[in-house]
Amino acid sequence: MTNPAKDAQAGVATAPAAAEQFLEIIPLGGMGEIGKNITAYRFQDEIMVVDGGLAFPDPHQLGVDLIIPRIDYLQQHAGLIKGWILTHGHEDHIGGLPYILPRLPRVPVYGAPLTLGLVREKLSEFGVRESDVDLREVDLNAKIRIGRHFGVEFIRMTHSIPDNAGYILTTPVGRVLHTGDFKLDEHPSDGKLSDLGRIEQVGREGVLLLISDSTNAERPGRTMSEAEVAKNLEDVIARCRGRVFMTTFASNIHRIGNVIQIAHRLGRRVVMEGRSMLKYAQVAQQLGYMDLPEPLLSSEEVGDLQDPQVLYVCTGSQGQPMSVLSRLAFGNHAKIALKRGDSVILSSNPIPGNEEAVNLVINRLYEIGVDVYYPPTYRVHASGHGSQEELATVLNLARPKYFLPWHGEPRHQINHARLAQTLPRPPRRTLIARNGDVVRLGPDEFRVTGTVPAGGVYVDGLGVGDVGDDVLLDRANMSQEGILIMTAVLHPTPHVEIVSRGFVRPNRDLDGQIRRVALDAVETGMREKKRLEDVRDDMYGAVRRFVRKVTGRNPVLIPLIVD
Amino acid sequence: MTNPAKDAQAGVATAPAAAEQFLEIIPLGGMGEIGKNITAYRFQDEIMVVDGGLAFPDPHQLGVDLIIPRIDYLQQHAGLIKGWILTHGHEDHIGGLPYILPRLPRVPVYGAPLTLGLVREKLSEFGVRESDVDLREVDLNAKIRIGRHFGVEFIRMTHSIPDNAGYILTTPVGRVLHTGDFKLDEHPSDGKLSDLGRIEQVGREGVLLLISDSTNAERPGRTMSEAEVAKNLEDVIARCRGRVFMTTFASNIHRIGNVIQIAHRLGRRVVMEGRSMLKYAQVAQQLGYMDLPEPLLSSEEVGDLQDPQVLYVCTGSQGQPMSVLSRLAFGNHAKIALKRGDSVILSSNPIPGNEEAVNLVINRLYEIGVDVYYPPTYRVHASGHGSQEELATVLNLARPKYFLPWHGEPRHQINHARLAQTLPRPPRRTLIARNGDVVRLGPDEFRVTGTVPAGGVYVDGLGVGDVGDDVLLDRANMSQEGILIMTAVLHPTPHVEIVSRGFVRPNRDLDGQIRRVALDAVETGMREKKRLEDVRDDMYGAVRRFVRKVTGRNPVLIPLIVD
Repeated sequence: MTNPAKDAQAGVATAPAAAEQFLEIIPLGGMGEIGKNITAYRFQDEIMVVDGGLAFPDPHQLGVDLIIPRIDYLQQHAGLIKGWILTHGHEDHIGGLPYILPRLPRVPVYGAPLTLGLVREKLSEFGVRESDVDLREVDLNAKIRIGRHFGVEFIRMTHSIPDNAGYILTTPVGRVLHTGDFKLDEHPSDGKLSDLGRIEQVGREGVLLLISDSTNAERPGRTMSEAEVAKNLEDVIARCRGRVFMTTFASNIHRIGNVIQIAHRLGRRVVMEGRSMLKYAQVAQQLGYMDLPEPLLSSEEVGDLQDPQVLYVCTGSQGQPMSVLSRLAFGNHAKIALKRGDSVILSSNPIPGNEEAVNLVINRLYEIGVDVYYPPTYRVHASGHGSQEELATVLNLARPKYFLPWHGEPRHQINHARLAQTLPRPPRRTLIARNGDVVRLGPDEFRVTGTVPAGGVYVDGLGVGDVGDDVLLDRANMSQEGILIMTAVLHPTPHVEIVSRGFVRPNRDLDGQIRRVALDAVETGMREKKRLEDVRDDMYGAVRRFVRKVTGRNPVLIPLIVD
Repeated sequence: MTNPAKDAQAGVATAPAAAEQFLEIIPLGGMGEIGKNITAYRFQDEIMVVDGGLAFPDPHQLGVDLIIPRIDYLQQHAGLIKGWILTHGHEDHIGGLPYILPRLPRVPVYGAPLTLGLVREKLSEFGVRESDVDLREVDLNAKIRIGRHFGVEFIRMTHSIPDNAGYILTTPVGRVLHTGDFKLDEHPSDGKLSDLGRIEQVGREGVLLLISDSTNAERPGRTMSEAEVAKNLEDVIARCRGRVFMTTFASNIHRIGNVIQIAHRLGRRVVMEGRSMLKYAQVAQQLGYMDLPEPLLSSEEVGDLQDPQVLYVCTGSQGQPMSVLSRLAFGNHAKIALKRGDSVILSSNPIPGNEEAVNLVINRLYEIGVDVYYPPTYRVHASGHGSQEELATVLNLARPKYFLPWHGEPRHQINHARLAQTLPRPPRRTLIARNGDVVRLGPDEFRVTGTVPAGGVYVDGLGVGDVGDDVLLDRANMSQEGILIMTAVLHPTPHVEIVSRGFVRPNRDLDGQIRRVALDAVETGMREKKRLEDVRDDMYGAVRRFVRKVTGRNPVLIPLIVD
């Protein structure tokens, strides 16, 4: 591994004179994090972009709905963008497009059928007209050109959504292989394997740079196949004697398709519940990615079916409060009530940050008395990302000269880099990059030469970017200590009103004391003919000291003076 | 398993006439949760209490420092309390005592030497005079009497802190065996095994009720021994070439003692950093639970030692922001700076809720370039709670007639109950109880007959109980949406001032629009000579609708009218 900062400095002195022939790789999201993937490639006066995802906020990003990548760099060089490619239809790869595409010129956007189907759905939801974007459908072995300098060959890689792609990027300086998100599933549900043959072939021909998925770089061995998950699900469902409720990620179309087949074999009709589940299923069916042996039912159509004849597929694998499973667990679903004898299968793991919410739901399900099946006790879920042996296979086949571990936090990137070093033909150099780094790539050059603005823009309600870290800091302070508003009215005789929220329970004694302290400060200030701002500051200081002393707390204090 | 509510009702009809001879078991904390353990036993006019712990708040309990159990039941029957026993010195078993003991009559409190040493430390920290409590030291095989009806025999059980006890409670209705927190460590660091012989013996003599630790009831197999953890730690430390920083739970005195021995063998001097680490080590040394081959150093005394001659034991295993490890990771420790070549060992797992904080620290450590060792890649931590096979061993030896799974959330209790049903001699009946349940136990009786008040009291700053769920709801609302305060001043001419926090970035246009909307409502109200409360409500409603429409948000709105 190499220290990029050090390299960048060293490069100033040692860069070759004829340095015009290089490619710049500029990750604007997804590098050093898991989420909001977007990468720009620039060669001279041409830019090609890959993906445009969103991220979900950390628990400390209070009240933020979602986070989209900063695209200042793309906006500043909008005229250079020649095209865009999409690797697959997950939110962290396409969820930012409704915010991003309308802010940039209309360029061709290439993607596989399901990927574009999900993008269309998303754009229409956000009111972006389809005529404002130029979506171009490609097969998963298509070769396209973008601008004069970029040749893109899509390659199929297995993942937890159909139509998932990596790509081989041919540029004037050499070949870049980007895996996209992947695992190496040897028993994929649709029978379509990762194209390892093509990776081996370009590996022999020469890969200058490999960019590869680091998500599970800390996990030894191999990630379980989707076929084994299906087998384990069938084992569990076969032993259930009452109704079955199964939840998973709505985008896991193969998993849901498998469960629909399993239900059919076991004589259960499938009921689908939850907006996002229905949305994905609709797109998947329309485009031929989900075969239905029998029509799906709505919960109203269950009618006279016996409990062992029904299987519900529903939202809520992450414990989301408004999801179907949460409403079932907390007993406030309008149409369905869980009962003893029902079984619930969580075919999922909590995404970091959702552990508490999922745990609450699981405990409530136990309290209701239903049977609950979830990992690791039941092996009914597998990650969509390859573990160490799969990452090693790709590294061994691709034999890259340079290596850029991507799609991971520093811990994942660095363990991926270490893994590469243990292999028979380790890469010549590995960079641990971050969002905004400008990675310069040439036949004999691989280093960070600068940075561009990168980071996240908060989306909150209808606002994009009007909530920043300053606003979140206020929210954090109020969330810990509450707020206390003091309104001093000066005329005809000075008096002070106190209102608080989230501070302490209504407490007349304490309110009275605080009013007294505030009023003393105001009266003193007026006697001494201070300026109003100073009177306000005196009141603020006096109350702050008093409150800290008697309660041990520091609520956000807002002093108002009405003259 | 049995539905307690149903049983309680059924009991009304079927209870025997001469029902005077029964024991009541009243968990006031730790039943249906992990944390704030406290249990009352009542026989006729005598009460005995076990433990008095605290819980740490969930992430959604905003700003709460800690949670102590409600003890209304004990306060209402204070005169009946005859004695108190403590099982071990963990916070979730003794951390509530400084709040609880001063509110109740002075009764004998029995515990092992280390347990009482930690209680004394805690009471003095909170300014409780030792003369106000009656602490009585016992050996871990002591037999004591409490009141006329309770015989208590302490039994040693291995756990992640020395001097850990379960107990056999002899009552007029029969024998209760309470495991306390435990794992069955066959290679304990102090060579002192769990007293399985005594459990087997009382099992043969007859155990009416077993109360057992459910924490790891979902984990198959056995929990790793502390000896294996020590071996794995030694393997890791032996390969480190620079300084080593090791963190674990400050109360894990055996683990820390083992690391001190390992450091000595490997030629490293030990530096201890962090207030809680030093506090536990001091108590442990004073009472003879921690042998030092060489004196501990402070970081000032490291002086000329080479990097491979130093090992730091420090706080921060849970990513606590003010801990030593966090300050090291974020580069704001006053005396020590991490550097490439250093190694950090997290001999711990994140407690649920701390995952994000620990992950942040780990990523920062990677970015600094230090080597980081943590589970599961490195097996340098083991739980203090037994897994399924250990729970089964205790159930098999104790052969209880009745079973009460304790120290767990519903998912753990219910899986513990199911495990018991798979054994050769399953209990006759198992109850899944909750805090506040009154569990009646007799020779042929085991059911919930009622409830008493139970739950948590929030400790926030200096306040105990003055923050309730209503206050937390305000905090939660403000944390998501911010707050907007509108002050309407009616004279001489009506005008409105706006202040907000955590809403959106300062935005003059929006403020102006909101002021206009508010003022319209006020002026209309005054023209129509409405009452001031109605004018205020009109202003509130108008602004709420307007803000929701233009921003998609619902900040907490505070309308103030100054006449």
